[in-house]
Amino acid sequence: MKKFNTSPISGMQELTPAKQAIFDKLKNEIAGVYHSHGFLSIETPIIDRTEILLAKAGGDTEKQIYKVVKTAETEGDADQALRFDHTVPLARYVVEHENDITFPFKVTQIGRNFRGERAQKGRFREFYQLDVDVIGREKLALAYDAEVVKTAYDALKTFIKPEMKIRISNRKILSGLLQELGLETKSEDIFSIIDHAEKVPKEKTLSAFEEIGLSNSEIEKLSSFMGINGTRETVIEKLKNLDIKNEIFALGVEELDEVLALLEKQGLKDTAVGDMLIIRGLDYYTGSVFETFLPEYREIGSICSGGRYENLASNYTENKFPGVGISIGLTRLFYVLNENNLLDEVSENPIDLVLIPFSENEYEYTFNLAEKLRSSGKKVDINLSDKKVGDKFTYAAKIAKFASVIGGNEVETGNIEVKNLETGEKLKLEDYIR
Amino acid sequence: MKKFNTSPISGMQELTPAKQAIFDKLKNEIAGVYHSHGFLSIETPIIDRTEILLAKAGGDTEKQIYKVVKTAETEGDADQALRFDHTVPLARYVVEHENDITFPFKVTQIGRNFRGERAQKGRFREFYQLDVDVIGREKLALAYDAEVVKTAYDALKTFIKPEMKIRISNRKILSGLLQELGLETKSEDIFSIIDHAEKVPKEKTLSAFEEIGLSNSEIEKLSSFMGINGTRETVIEKLKNLDIKNEIFALGVEELDEVLALLEKQGLKDTAVGDMLIIRGLDYYTGSVFETFLPEYREIGSICSGGRYENLASNYTENKFPGVGISIGLTRLFYVLNENNLLDEVSENPIDLVLIPFSENEYEYTFNLAEKLRSSGKKVDINLSDKKVGDKFTYAAKIAKFASVIGGNEVETGNIEVKNLETGEKLKLEDYIR
Repeated sequence: MKKFNTSPISGMQELTPAKQAIFDKLKNEIAGVYHSHGFLSIETPIIDRTEILLAKAGGDTEKQIYKVVKTAETEGDADQALRFDHTVPLARYVVEHENDITFPFKVTQIGRNFRGERAQKGRFREFYQLDVDVIGREKLALAYDAEVVKTAYDALKTFIKPEMKIRISNRKILSGLLQELGLETKSEDIFSIIDHAEKVPKEKTLSAFEEIGLSNSEIEKLSSFMGINGTRETVIEKLKNLDIKNEIFALGVEELDEVLALLEKQGLKDTAVGDMLIIRGLDYYTGSVFETFLPEYREIGSICSGGRYENLASNYTENKFPGVGISIGLTRLFYVLNENNLLDEVSENPIDLVLIPFSENEYEYTFNLAEKLRSSGKKVDINLSDKKVGDKFTYAAKIAKFASVIGGNEVETGNIEVKNLETGEKLKLEDYIR
Repeated sequence: MKKFNTSPISGMQELTPAKQAIFDKLKNEIAGVYHSHGFLSIETPIIDRTEILLAKAGGDTEKQIYKVVKTAETEGDADQALRFDHTVPLARYVVEHENDITFPFKVTQIGRNFRGERAQKGRFREFYQLDVDVIGREKLALAYDAEVVKTAYDALKTFIKPEMKIRISNRKILSGLLQELGLETKSEDIFSIIDHAEKVPKEKTLSAFEEIGLSNSEIEKLSSFMGINGTRETVIEKLKNLDIKNEIFALGVEELDEVLALLEKQGLKDTAVGDMLIIRGLDYYTGSVFETFLPEYREIGSICSGGRYENLASNYTENKFPGVGISIGLTRLFYVLNENNLLDEVSENPIDLVLIPFSENEYEYTFNLAEKLRSSGKKVDINLSDKKVGDKFTYAAKIAKFASVIGGNEVETGNIEVKNLETGEKLKLEDYIR
C-alpha cells in the first residue's frame, strides 16, 4: 500500500524501462550522426547565473525560468536558475573558453533543459534538446547553414519513417520587404502575425493586419509574399518577380538561394524547400530560419528548428561570434511519435541473453561464460535469484529474446543450448554467437 | 572585451571540448559495461517533489538540497527540489512503476545529481553518478551483492590503470558485535567513529571511544575488530576467532563469506577483500557495504561505493523491496584522475578526418565523399570557411589526426591523398579507410 503520491511532477517525462530503451536508442543515433559530421560535444552546468540566463530574455522565458534557492552552504553565490535552452549557456561558454576553442567551432550539446510552463498534455517542463551549432569568430561561411540542416536531417532520418519537409526562409527577406513598404515600425507585429498564420484561420490573419493599420494594398502584397513556397528555382523566381529594389531583401534572397542550392547538392532538393511562412519567433535570428514538418502529420508541428544569429554573445562580450544552429526537441518528439504509433518500427531488446544457472554449483562456470559473451559484445544477464527454473524463464522472456539453462551436464560437456523465447527454437551456443 | 562574468558557478564542472571527449568516453565505457551485465536504463526527473526527496533525509542532505522556486505557471504544483542522488528517485520509481518492472530489477541510472555544498576544490555541486542497483520484491538473493561489485569493477577497469582494492564489510557484523557487548544504545556513535577512523590519527579514535564512555576492555575489543582485513579466508577466520555467539554477528559473517566467495570465483580474490573499517555513513545500508580505493593514491579516497539496503521504499509503501547498489561518482573521479595525471593513457580523437574543399566547385564531390566515409563509421568534418588552405590545415591539426584537400584534380581523378597531421605522412584514401 502506498503511503505517498509517487507519480513524477506533472510535465516530467518518466518512462518504463522498455520505452526508455527506445528513447535512449534514438538519442544515441542522433548523437552518432552529429559526431559523424564532426561536431564536438560540450556540457554546460544545468544551474547557471540568473543574470547570464536572463541577459537577453523577456516575455515567456522570464515567466517560465526555474529559479533555484541557495542552500545554507552556497549563500555567498550569485542568484541561480536552471538553463532553459542550450544557446544561452553556449554563448557564455564561447566567451569563457574562447582560447580553448578552434573556430569555426562545430559543437553539439545534448541534455535536459527546463521551463516551468503551465501543465498541458504533450508539453514538458524538463525536456531533452539535441543541438548542433557552428560558431565563427567575426565571420562564418553561409555554407554552415546548409551543414546544420543536413546534419539534423541525417539524424532524424535514422528513425523517422514518414516524409519530412524542411521549410526554410531568411529573415532578411521579410525585413527588406517591410523596409521597402515603409513598414519597419510595424515589423515586430508583422513578423508575429506571419509566424502564427498557419495556426489560425486565414480571416484572422487578415483582420490582424487590418488592426495594426495596414492598407488593402499592403495586405495584398504581404499575402502574396506569404504564399511563396517550393523548391529553390520556383521560390527564388517568385521572390525576384516581386520586383523589390531593397538591398537587404536582395541579400536575403541570395542567401536563401545559396543555402537551398547547397542542400540540393546533397540530395535534398524536394525535402529542403523555401517557404516565406517560416519566421521562428525568437528575435535573435537574423538570417536563415528552418522548421521541419511531417506533411502526413501536420498537427505534430515542427520537430526540428533553428537558424542563423549574427551575434551569439553580444550580451556578454564586445567580440563578434556569428553562429547557426538547429535543435531536435527529443522529449516532445518521442512523445508525439509514440502517440502516433510511429515508434513501432523502432525496437530494441535491451538484453540479449539470460543465463540461468541450475544451482550454485554452476555459478563459477556461468560467470566465466558470461564474461566471454560480454567481451564479444553481448548484453548478458545471469538470473541469480533462488526461484524455480520455470519462474526464471518467465523472467527471461520479459526482458530478453534468448535464455540458456546451465546445469551440471552443461558444465561437464560444454554443450550449451540457447532457447529463442519467442519461437521456442533451440540453438547451439556456437550458432547463437555467430 | 567581456561585459559579464562568464565563468560557471563555483562547484560546477565545465570542460574544454578535448577534456569533454575524454569524459564522455569514460562515461560511455562505464555505461557499456553496465549494459553488458544486463542492467536496464531508466531516467527519473531532475526536479522532484520535496516531500519525496526529503522523506528520509536529515542532516547534510536537508542543508544541501536545492529547492526550486515555482514559476508563475506552475504555482499549483507541490513543493519541488533537485534530486541529490539516484537512490531516492529510484525508490519512488519502483513504487510507481511496480507493474511495469520485472523483478529482480537490474537497473542503471546515469545522470547528474545536485548538492549545494560549501565550495571546495575537487568537490562538485553538480556531479554525474553512474549507478547500478538490483531490486527484489520481498526477497533478493545475496549473489547480487557480488554482481554489482563485479559490474562496477569491470566498468572501472576499462580506464583505471593503477591497482584497485574493493574493501567490503557487512553492517550486521558490527551490529551483532555491539549487541553482544551490550553497546546497542551507543551504536550510532560507534558506527560513526569507526567510519571516520581512517581520516583521523589513531589517538583521536581512542579518545572518541573514551568520550562516549567505553571501558578499556570494550575499546580493546573494538580496536582488534577494526584491525581485521584481508582476503576471504583470513578475514572469516579472524572474525570467527573473536568467538562472538551473537546470531546477527554470525549471519553477517556468513553473508560476507558468501559475497567474497562469489567474487573469488570471478577472479577477484586479491582485489575484493574483507575490511572491518568499512561502514558507509548512510544509515539505510543494512548488510554488505563496499568502498573502492587505489592503494597507490590513497588520498583520493573511495572512488566507487555502495551496499545492501533491506527496504528501499519503506517511506513510500508497505511493500518490501530489498536492494543492493553501487555508484561511480564520475565527475569527482574524472577530476582526481586528471589531477594525478592518470588520464594520460586515455585519449580520444573526437574527429577522424577533416576534408578541405579547395573551392566551392568541389563542394558537391566533397559532400558525397563525406557521406560515404560517415556511413562507414568515420567522424568527418568539412571545413567550409572561406579561409586559405594553410589556415584550414591549422584548423584541422587542432581537432583531428588526418586531413585531405579536395581540389579539381582530385575530383577529376578520384585520387585522394590523406595527410597524417602528426607525422606528415601521406596515404591513399583507400589505405586510410582500411
